[in-house]
Amino acid sequence: MNKASQPPTTELCTHSLTGMSYRDRDLVNELIGERSFTDVMFTQIMGRRPRPVDLRIVDAVLITLMEHGLTPSAIATRLIYMSAPENLQGAVSAGLLAVGSQFVGTMENCAALLEQLLASSDIDAKAREIAQDYRARKQPLPGFGHHLHKPDDPRSIKLIQLAQQETELGQAHVNALLTFNKAIDETYGRHITINATGAVAALLGEIGIPTHLMRGFAVISRAAGLVSHIAEEQRMPSGRFIWETIDEAIPYVKKASE
Amino acid sequence: MNKASQPPTTELCTHSLTGMSYRDRDLVNELIGERSFTDVMFTQIMGRRPRPVDLRIVDAVLITLMEHGLTPSAIATRLIYMSAPENLQGAVSAGLLAVGSQFVGTMENCAALLEQLLASSDIDAKAREIAQDYRARKQPLPGFGHHLHKPDDPRSIKLIQLAQQETELGQAHVNALLTFNKAIDETYGRHITINATGAVAALLGEIGIPTHLMRGFAVISRAAGLVSHIAEEQRMPSGRFIWETIDEAIPYVKKASE
Amino acid sequence: MNKASQPPTTELCTHSLTGMSYRDRDLVNELIGERSFTDVMFTQIMGRRPRPVDLRIVDAVLITLMEHGLTPSAIATRLIYMSAPENLQGAVSAGLLAVGSQFVGTMENCAALLEQLLASSDIDAKAREIAQDYRARKQPLPGFGHHLHKPDDPRSIKLIQLAQQETELGQAHVNALLTFNKAIDETYGRHITINATGAVAALLGEIGIPTHLMRGFAVISRAAGLVSHIAEEQRMPSGRFIWETIDEAIPYVKKASE
Amino acid sequence: MNKASQPPTTELCTHSLTGMSYRDRDLVNELIGERSFTDVMFTQIMGRRPRPVDLRIVDAVLITLMEHGLTPSAIATRLIYMSAPENLQGAVSAGLLAVGSQFVGTMENCAALLEQLLASSDIDAKAREIAQDYRARKQPLPGFGHHLHKPDDPRSIKLIQLAQQETELGQAHVNALLTFNKAIDETYGRHITINATGAVAALLGEIGIPTHLMRGFAVISRAAGLVSHIAEEQRMPSGRFIWETIDEAIPYVKKASE
Repeated sequence: MNKASQPPTTELCTHSLTGMSYRDRDLVNELIGERSFTDVMFTQIMGRRPRPVDLRIVDAVLITLMEHGLTPSAIATRLIYMSAPENLQGAVSAGLLAVGSQFVGTMENCAALLEQLLASSDIDAKAREIAQDYRARKQPLPGFGHHLHKPDDPRSIKLIQLAQQETELGQAHVNALLTFNKAIDETYGRHITINATGAVAALLGEIGIPTHLMRGFAVISRAAGLVSHIAEEQRMPSGRFIWETIDEAIPYVKKASE
Repeated sequence: MNKASQPPTTELCTHSLTGMSYRDRDLVNELIGERSFTDVMFTQIMGRRPRPVDLRIVDAVLITLMEHGLTPSAIATRLIYMSAPENLQGAVSAGLLAVGSQFVGTMENCAALLEQLLASSDIDAKAREIAQDYRARKQPLPGFGHHLHKPDDPRSIKLIQLAQQETELGQAHVNALLTFNKAIDETYGRHITINATGAVAALLGEIGIPTHLMRGFAVISRAAGLVSHIAEEQRMPSGRFIWETIDEAIPYVKKASE
Repeated sequence: MNKASQPPTTELCTHSLTGMSYRDRDLVNELIGERSFTDVMFTQIMGRRPRPVDLRIVDAVLITLMEHGLTPSAIATRLIYMSAPENLQGAVSAGLLAVGSQFVGTMENCAALLEQLLASSDIDAKAREIAQDYRARKQPLPGFGHHLHKPDDPRSIKLIQLAQQETELGQAHVNALLTFNKAIDETYGRHITINATGAVAALLGEIGIPTHLMRGFAVISRAAGLVSHIAEEQRMPSGRFIWETIDEAIPYVKKASE
Repeated sequence: MNKASQPPTTELCTHSLTGMSYRDRDLVNELIGERSFTDVMFTQIMGRRPRPVDLRIVDAVLITLMEHGLTPSAIATRLIYMSAPENLQGAVSAGLLAVGSQFVGTMENCAALLEQLLASSDIDAKAREIAQDYRARKQPLPGFGHHLHKPDDPRSIKLIQLAQQETELGQAHVNALLTFNKAIDETYGRHITINATGAVAALLGEIGIPTHLMRGFAVISRAAGLVSHIAEEQRMPSGRFIWETIDEAIPYVKKASE
């Protein structure tokens, strides 16, 4: 293999005999005890100091994505924790692997559609075109629809209101989402709610998070949620109950024919 | 298998047609836009609302553990991200699996020793006894020593100072750590620094985090750090460079003899 | 949520007071000591007993995919093993997460193209059409090309020869691959080698492995390869050397401007 | 950091313009189409060509550990597969993280006790001493006991018989296990069965697998088992059923008091 001509560098962290820096800020004197976790996280990820509005948006998103009860992610974490309690990180890792296409991935797909709308010269026409295309292909609309919350997912309404109150935000992504929602309702002839991942896509877009990095915020948030599940598992174990319940609920059958 | 007589329950989250609650707080009206990520995370994990001092301590700990440059954890994340960029969560999960016995696990082992000291009727004698035992068995002292930072790890000094300024904390864990440090210096005849995991063990102990849950805070914090590495990888890829560098640096050799 | 009307069942395994069965074969009396690992693995995955030809093909594929030196996958496994040696399964899991789109995923994409060819009424025309489409879009051809092996990857040649010697195989997938190769060479005006994942796609197709399951064989095979790396790591540790080499090779730089 | 004076090397694999070798055997001409997967796997892991007896023992062990129905490992794999079907390797990785202390780890702990017995000058006395020590500390005996199979686990009986028929094996580990079993029965005043992990520990010991590498064989075997679960999940999905069943079975409750 030929080595790349220019070796990569890193801006994230350096350490010396007397201290450590994160992105040229002295860890001991400028960060620990001075800033919040969300602030330092944002700075490390984005390479710029967050404005107060960035922190409000990121906190709202991280809180929204943290927890959803006994989801596939939480059940997997509890089962792995039961099997290897010496290895808490493995239980969290197992659960994080659920942050894939079926749930959180819709956020990125929605954000990509919002990018298309924002790049278009006629956003209303483009919104109708995309909605009609999804309808024709009978594909689920990323960021829209919820099996439970009707007519509207209260989380999305709240998140959009929060963003709309922020005068420092350009509102382009939020407005694109609302335009898209209107086109969808017209195309399908009924109201389809913006769901939490749709609203999150717009909010993270407003503060400049690249589409392909959005999933990272879900991972961080869910890591915290999964640690809560392990804490509960330590107080009231459910792993063996889950195992026995499922082993009983899914019976063994002989193959019908061969 | 016999089912447990009493099925487990959960206090973490419930959802209904009109909303969702985390631990009986309405997500939309009481949490999103009202609290910080660290606040909600602490409440979910610990089952109680954090005091301001709890938030200051947790933020300081999370910031300290977030980043340490191109560690095994960060290198693994970058390599997996290169191989499966469609799967950001897998790259973070791979890196989190490094949060094991050799680095972060020392935090729990240190916390367990602090617990022993606090349960003892003569803490000074117990501290000397443990130090002498580790010295006799030539075992590394969990929470002490650093290959680079001498005489003292500046992060630990800062973290301990932060805790000592907090009048609401009982200081028992911090004082146990300092007593232990003194006994260690006397036993070994030289100064051995408290390292970052030692200081973190004392701080998390001060705010009531159980020893077996401490690793969870390292996992959350490191998840944020690893997302920063992926963000940097998206702007300036290093995965292929790492691969080629190591493939070249570790040569193939025939087996000496068979 | 509404439960599915019909609960799922499993055909894989059942256990009772006196024994266990895998797919209605008694584990103790019919499998252990009677069959090979590859035989039982194939039966469990495919739901039918393998013919000798199936075993020869699967063994050839598993051996081919097992090892490729210090790849991203192997490096990640070694680093995680160094960090958490108490947790061998975590080190293997971390490495397996590299079995993604960039390397092994090309096998599935190649298999999907072979399916398209086999479903076409004019396979030669379809092959040219696909080749021209990839060329026009400047996309890499899944299953073709290798940065090192030119003119031909010796592994693919061997695997295709093996399949061609098997009179029980229909040869449709192998022939489709060769037809595709010819169309590619004509379209690009030079010879592009079938690579190992291309040949594997054809061979697994010949024995009826569904496209979306092919990656599973790479995962099983690579698990064995990664255990070899851990065995070598136990005899001659490289984890710390990898860490130090990379930490030195990728320097910290200040951000150019802000 | 100071670099290690002597950089590590690897004996596993090398590749050149014209071919590839695994441990100095030409992949294309000596391995593919010539040997079985188990054969090449053993050679890579152990650095020596297996004797026929080694292959018989390893195959028996791999088949025994492959499958146990809807275990925590299999349930986790199915849930992650449902959430991220584009990422089969993540689903297997999640399930493999269950290969920890509570189930498979007992194999290593049993092997370590067998090592102690074999290093002792009076193996009967040592066996009684260990049994009495575990009884006094009310600790579970690694490799012994099964909640279902009584009086004996049929898998262990079969595995031990297989080993005893092999005249090339020294039988030291098998005999140590049987001696240990006798001491346990006397100490506890009732028969406690050798379980599958106990028998596997003795068999792998007989063919020279180091204790700390034994878990690797469980990981390889279980990877194959988990791919079977994914294959079944593709034909008959259970992930959503598992989710809904558990979400319903574990109710949300308000905290009793605060």
